[in-house]
Amino acid sequence: MKQPLTEEKVFKDPVHNYIHVQDTIIWRLINTKEFQRLRRIRQLGTSYLTFHGAEHSRFSHSLGVYEITRRIISQFERSGYKDWMPEERLLTLCAALLHDLGHGPFSHSIEEAFEMNHEDWTCRIILENTEITEILRDVEADFPRKVASVISKTYEHEIVVNLVSGPLDADRMDYLLRDAHYTGVNYGTIDIDRILRMLRPYNGRVVVKESGMHAIEDYLMSRYQMYWQVYFHPVTRSSEIILRQIFRRAKELQQKGYAFRFMIEPLADLFCSELSVEQYLMLDEALVQTAFMQWTLEGDELLSDLCSRFIHRKLYKYVEMENLDPDMIEAIRSSFKLAGLNAEYDLEIDYPTDLPYDVFRPGEGFDSKQILLLDRHERLREISEVSDIVRSISGIHRGRYHLYFPQDKVKKALTRLPDSIAEIFAK
Amino acid sequence: MKQPLTEEKVFKDPVHNYIHVQDTIIWRLINTKEFQRLRRIRQLGTSYLTFHGAEHSRFSHSLGVYEITRRIISQFERSGYKDWMPEERLLTLCAALLHDLGHGPFSHSIEEAFEMNHEDWTCRIILENTEITEILRDVEADFPRKVASVISKTYEHEIVVNLVSGPLDADRMDYLLRDAHYTGVNYGTIDIDRILRMLRPYNGRVVVKESGMHAIEDYLMSRYQMYWQVYFHPVTRSSEIILRQIFRRAKELQQKGYAFRFMIEPLADLFCSELSVEQYLMLDEALVQTAFMQWTLEGDELLSDLCSRFIHRKLYKYVEMENLDPDMIEAIRSSFKLAGLNAEYDLEIDYPTDLPYDVFRPGEGFDSKQILLLDRHERLREISEVSDIVRSISGIHRGRYHLYFPQDKVKKALTRLPDSIAEIFAK
Amino acid sequence: MKQPLTEEKVFKDPVHNYIHVQDTIIWRLINTKEFQRLRRIRQLGTSYLTFHGAEHSRFSHSLGVYEITRRIISQFERSGYKDWMPEERLLTLCAALLHDLGHGPFSHSIEEAFEMNHEDWTCRIILENTEITEILRDVEADFPRKVASVISKTYEHEIVVNLVSGPLDADRMDYLLRDAHYTGVNYGTIDIDRILRMLRPYNGRVVVKESGMHAIEDYLMSRYQMYWQVYFHPVTRSSEIILRQIFRRAKELQQKGYAFRFMIEPLADLFCSELSVEQYLMLDEALVQTAFMQWTLEGDELLSDLCSRFIHRKLYKYVEMENLDPDMIEAIRSSFKLAGLNAEYDLEIDYPTDLPYDVFRPGEGFDSKQILLLDRHERLREISEVSDIVRSISGIHRGRYHLYFPQDKVKKALTRLPDSIAEIFAK
Amino acid sequence: MKQPLTEEKVFKDPVHNYIHVQDTIIWRLINTKEFQRLRRIRQLGTSYLTFHGAEHSRFSHSLGVYEITRRIISQFERSGYKDWMPEERLLTLCAALLHDLGHGPFSHSIEEAFEMNHEDWTCRIILENTEITEILRDVEADFPRKVASVISKTYEHEIVVNLVSGPLDADRMDYLLRDAHYTGVNYGTIDIDRILRMLRPYNGRVVVKESGMHAIEDYLMSRYQMYWQVYFHPVTRSSEIILRQIFRRAKELQQKGYAFRFMIEPLADLFCSELSVEQYLMLDEALVQTAFMQWTLEGDELLSDLCSRFIHRKLYKYVEMENLDPDMIEAIRSSFKLAGLNAEYDLEIDYPTDLPYDVFRPGEGFDSKQILLLDRHERLREISEVSDIVRSISGIHRGRYHLYFPQDKVKKALTRLPDSIAEIFAK
Repeated sequence: MKQPLTEEKVFKDPVHNYIHVQDTIIWRLINTKEFQRLRRIRQLGTSYLTFHGAEHSRFSHSLGVYEITRRIISQFERSGYKDWMPEERLLTLCAALLHDLGHGPFSHSIEEAFEMNHEDWTCRIILENTEITEILRDVEADFPRKVASVISKTYEHEIVVNLVSGPLDADRMDYLLRDAHYTGVNYGTIDIDRILRMLRPYNGRVVVKESGMHAIEDYLMSRYQMYWQVYFHPVTRSSEIILRQIFRRAKELQQKGYAFRFMIEPLADLFCSELSVEQYLMLDEALVQTAFMQWTLEGDELLSDLCSRFIHRKLYKYVEMENLDPDMIEAIRSSFKLAGLNAEYDLEIDYPTDLPYDVFRPGEGFDSKQILLLDRHERLREISEVSDIVRSISGIHRGRYHLYFPQDKVKKALTRLPDSIAEIFAK
Repeated sequence: MKQPLTEEKVFKDPVHNYIHVQDTIIWRLINTKEFQRLRRIRQLGTSYLTFHGAEHSRFSHSLGVYEITRRIISQFERSGYKDWMPEERLLTLCAALLHDLGHGPFSHSIEEAFEMNHEDWTCRIILENTEITEILRDVEADFPRKVASVISKTYEHEIVVNLVSGPLDADRMDYLLRDAHYTGVNYGTIDIDRILRMLRPYNGRVVVKESGMHAIEDYLMSRYQMYWQVYFHPVTRSSEIILRQIFRRAKELQQKGYAFRFMIEPLADLFCSELSVEQYLMLDEALVQTAFMQWTLEGDELLSDLCSRFIHRKLYKYVEMENLDPDMIEAIRSSFKLAGLNAEYDLEIDYPTDLPYDVFRPGEGFDSKQILLLDRHERLREISEVSDIVRSISGIHRGRYHLYFPQDKVKKALTRLPDSIAEIFAK
Repeated sequence: MKQPLTEEKVFKDPVHNYIHVQDTIIWRLINTKEFQRLRRIRQLGTSYLTFHGAEHSRFSHSLGVYEITRRIISQFERSGYKDWMPEERLLTLCAALLHDLGHGPFSHSIEEAFEMNHEDWTCRIILENTEITEILRDVEADFPRKVASVISKTYEHEIVVNLVSGPLDADRMDYLLRDAHYTGVNYGTIDIDRILRMLRPYNGRVVVKESGMHAIEDYLMSRYQMYWQVYFHPVTRSSEIILRQIFRRAKELQQKGYAFRFMIEPLADLFCSELSVEQYLMLDEALVQTAFMQWTLEGDELLSDLCSRFIHRKLYKYVEMENLDPDMIEAIRSSFKLAGLNAEYDLEIDYPTDLPYDVFRPGEGFDSKQILLLDRHERLREISEVSDIVRSISGIHRGRYHLYFPQDKVKKALTRLPDSIAEIFAK
Repeated sequence: MKQPLTEEKVFKDPVHNYIHVQDTIIWRLINTKEFQRLRRIRQLGTSYLTFHGAEHSRFSHSLGVYEITRRIISQFERSGYKDWMPEERLLTLCAALLHDLGHGPFSHSIEEAFEMNHEDWTCRIILENTEITEILRDVEADFPRKVASVISKTYEHEIVVNLVSGPLDADRMDYLLRDAHYTGVNYGTIDIDRILRMLRPYNGRVVVKESGMHAIEDYLMSRYQMYWQVYFHPVTRSSEIILRQIFRRAKELQQKGYAFRFMIEPLADLFCSELSVEQYLMLDEALVQTAFMQWTLEGDELLSDLCSRFIHRKLYKYVEMENLDPDMIEAIRSSFKLAGLNAEYDLEIDYPTDLPYDVFRPGEGFDSKQILLLDRHERLREISEVSDIVRSISGIHRGRYHLYFPQDKVKKALTRLPDSIAEIFAK
């Protein structure tokens, strides 16, 4: 069952031009209902509310990750690198294709709201008797477990894990390129051909030939820019906050026994219990959006207001603050309460700090998150030892507090707030 | 209220790089809930099932049409062409922005299934007391009517109508570029800067300077290629057919009084009566997809099968036939019935023939669908008189019959079909 | 000596991103002085006077042709097509790389002026003891002859010839893409990945899978557009005419024994005798331009005027005429003479008609210039039998007479010309 | 004479798509022989020997700089910024167009070799009765002086100078984009539309709106990458070194009274005296290359060897060294001499350090090289105060010593060198 397709199949792709499918197993996996479901999950969650072009799905991203992985492996095999194990090819490709299988609708927000983890769901879908499981078993009985172990980073051959989720993995390369293409923000344009040419399997991990250093610098800068301009965009954060508040409020109402004018499966179960794989697979963004649209007509004013904001894109405004200590936060919340505002829902504080490259700081010994350069003398060095650029930016730390709030409501309460607090929200 | 914005606003757009908003009215229109709804309607309907990148919305297309119109007008004004009436600028921009406002979910299919017309809905949304109506009234009391009349092609100044829906309108230019960008099919790449430079208002319509002829040839060829490779793609047609069948079946069931396990407003009303504007605005693709997903669990086997096919992308197969006369069609349908197949649902015949450029055939006098070239001597000629390419391709006619069918079902019935018919579906 | 390089080398290329060199022989050929000379010959001759970006050299084009050929062969080998002979790989690559080696400065013009042929020179450079010859002999004694025979289309295995100079050869694909990139005229953008995927070796020639038909249609249209907008651009023709007139005049003067203020080897020899390979290799565009620059100061007024026109880009103007019979031409020439103009130099008539696709007209049997489609049933058909587009455009014939003349001179003589002739040149 | 053209003219440009000419004066300047000469001077000197695509001329760059300046001014005028003086428009455009007019062949090398300065030559060509001077005088008698003063940075209105040569000038923006397009190195791709939108005239200089900070960060990173990957590429430096050695050797020979087999005006004069403007204008790269080609046959072995290396691209090799003190340099030179090598010609030491952004370090007060951000409160801050990225990279210092040498010659002498020195050159 590991056989190649009699004729290669292709998908037309705006990022990679063509996605080449050469194995029957890959072709069959793509055509399962579990994989097709990824068409109904957006790659960038609510970012489409900031960048109207960003409607692309996890389906297309997953194909892209598969394609980059295929190209890397094909390069490894063409070059005959002895640190690559050709027998791991199909496993790596399957893991690359399926690594995002468990993402739910508006993934990051729903995970926070319901304490779920998409990686766990990916493994469950791979293992629990789905169409996916069945196809993987056709390779060998133990194959589903192997694929899941690559995704959960416990597979015995480190290089396979490293290819699917390392600091230079196909996942990151595809999303930078794809998100740049769909948002129109061109900072994500990396020289992927050059990066791929520079990768080498070495001692159980993927390293970079030293002459590829500039391409990596450029890649890290692209990531940095994409993080701050796209992924952490305050308008996107604002919509994520509202989304989480909707989930929070609906759950509260459900637990209080509120009678919803509209409810749909498996949403109700999500609020109170664990979902089965089958139920989880029915969750998609269409369902979430539909529920929100219907809830704009709910009797609970808070829920219907939040849903209207999300659906009609009347988002929270924000102010930026350099510093904000816990006392100050407390003071704001208290005065919000006194002013008749909802201290829990009418104010959210966000401090975006995840640094896309902080993992590259020189440490003791090499860890799996570092990018290593391999020089002519087969010497490995962590990239920030060699690159001035990477060393310079790896200390950068850019967070600022962002306070999100419903401008219309807060505006009306301004006179009831202490001046020092009112002026923060007044502009 | 016609005032310009104090500072121009922009939207980042992957096709035009930036969309520039310079008028308060335009900015306010974009932020209405009726316009935001277009984010939930895909530009290319079910094409995303063929080209996974084609998830872009009518929201982004509408912004693009507005932007191209803005550039054309700005060029007209910079050049001081006397056949352009600067006082029509805002009206033209509003009509360009709003021309697709009435599109429903999976527009073409739903219009066929329910005998609706998106243009009528556009006009109703503009006229019937929505947020849009209110903003337009701020320009002048009669402004909503004017905008609607441009869209319904009855506005008194022909050039405004011609800009919004002529053979070289901003609509077509944007969709060629946008659909090319999102599908990855690069045949749609036209030299829009050159085309825009070559347009001139002349005697109540938009004509092209003769030196722009090659750019127009290229544009017509791009359209031709996009029609056959994207818009008429058999996989897309297959999914549209299933979509229509779902609507047909659900309507039948509703009329028969079938008790749906899942029903959602305003879908029920759509099946039996006229929708109000308010109801119509709740219709979006998320709602339709959610209903279909839920209906995969319906008791009616036909409906649940059709919905599974659509949601999990198990589409109908097709065979192509050069010729197919009514007798033959009748023979196939009869033998399908005899073989226990559902002659109405298990076979759909499609004959795609719409020629994107047939309207350019030389006729008597110029009609509004022709592209006219203006030479140095201010002489107008229909383009196919001048261009060998356009003349050559304007006679092309490419239709072939496509028979769509559920392969699994038909396969099982093959032995019960006459050989001559079985062999059509056997390969 | 056929060994691969220990490590693949690459050239950064704006068209193909990277050019991959995998064979020692190819690497050494690129580094010969004969091949490096192609850096000093522009790909598009005088087109840079029309399109300022078109300064690219035959060196870059030759690398591009090599790269496309390499990709085609690599695809043939990956697919294991049995009609491809893997032992011909290196020969094909060498012929692809070297096929333009004999081009002289401003190739087309110099060939016309001196009745030379670049293909002959290519073969001589390959065969007559140059650095190239020596390297090719390292493969085998007979290898230079084999390479030359591929270029002169006499090599025994037709498919090798077909790859290097067929209707879908790497030469044409590279120049369309490259000329589009450097001129900025985007009509040349073809979907090369798709075309390459669709090629198959079949019965001694390269054919196209039927599903690639649209990509070929698009390629033929691109060619058509590039011909008329770039290659036949009247401003380029004007500069070519002046160039030929300079060569003509200098040769006349040389033969008359005129004492040139400036002369340079091997230009003098070129005017009166056959050049040796060594001499020919010294000819490049720098030398020709330098001679012209120096000749702007020559005593012969005609020569210095022509050279000033070329160097300072004061080109001839042109008028277009639909029809022009020999009598009319004679009448114009006579009246030019009577009016004191130089009937030989002050008027040039050009009738561009070469049709890039006329070779594709259906004929009897297949000839080597036709593009053949291969369908699922392994049936070959000439493309215009199947494609409406190709059939439609293959009859197109677009020539118009262009009369080129020095506007300043003719203007002064206008009153001395008969009215009917004066009015042609008057506008 | 300041009149606009009756119809805008355009040049097709691969970088900006179209270059728009709207003024008669600009059109006439472009058609002078002095400006046309820039077609014969490459933008990137010898870089074409490293990046084969980099054949583009200063002509196309100059048009590009003009176009960007035109767009900036047009934006200033559209926005009605009061710190912009509309009456300076034509002056700014002329200075932008002409700022590179005085560049000689292989500009940087020839300037070093002959202690010339292209800016001085630009001013002389503008002022000393050329076709350019005459056209500028048509604007007003004093206009040539004004244009020259902008170029020499002494013009009274600082903002005009700042637009033509400031840290964010049109010159830098065009060359990054253009060099990226022609080399194929995509690190130079900046978001020029966004940068242009963010510029504002303010208090006599061009500043950037704070919201444009990321675009500027990206621009500085692009510059950094282009410097190290293109402009300082060791292969390019190697060819520049040989070029300078050729000039040095030829000058030595000329001064010694050596009888050149080939000499051409005005090269001889260049070696011993000051050139007139007329003579200087005859200098172009064709002439230099032609002399070098002819000198490959000179009797002086050193000169002919150097010329062969340059023409046939047999360049010097290089080794990189982290540290190299003056004593070590002296030791190498001495041992080269002892080993029979030419200590002056067979070894060149290069230490590339010019930092493209070091000028942006915070200083006291703002100087004309700093990039200033303007925030909402009309407060100016030097960018490195605000941007972590800029602050981080502004301390970077990347120089390494590069030793260039003729490998063939040095290899033969290796055994005669002390081991410690031999090993440097041995690998």
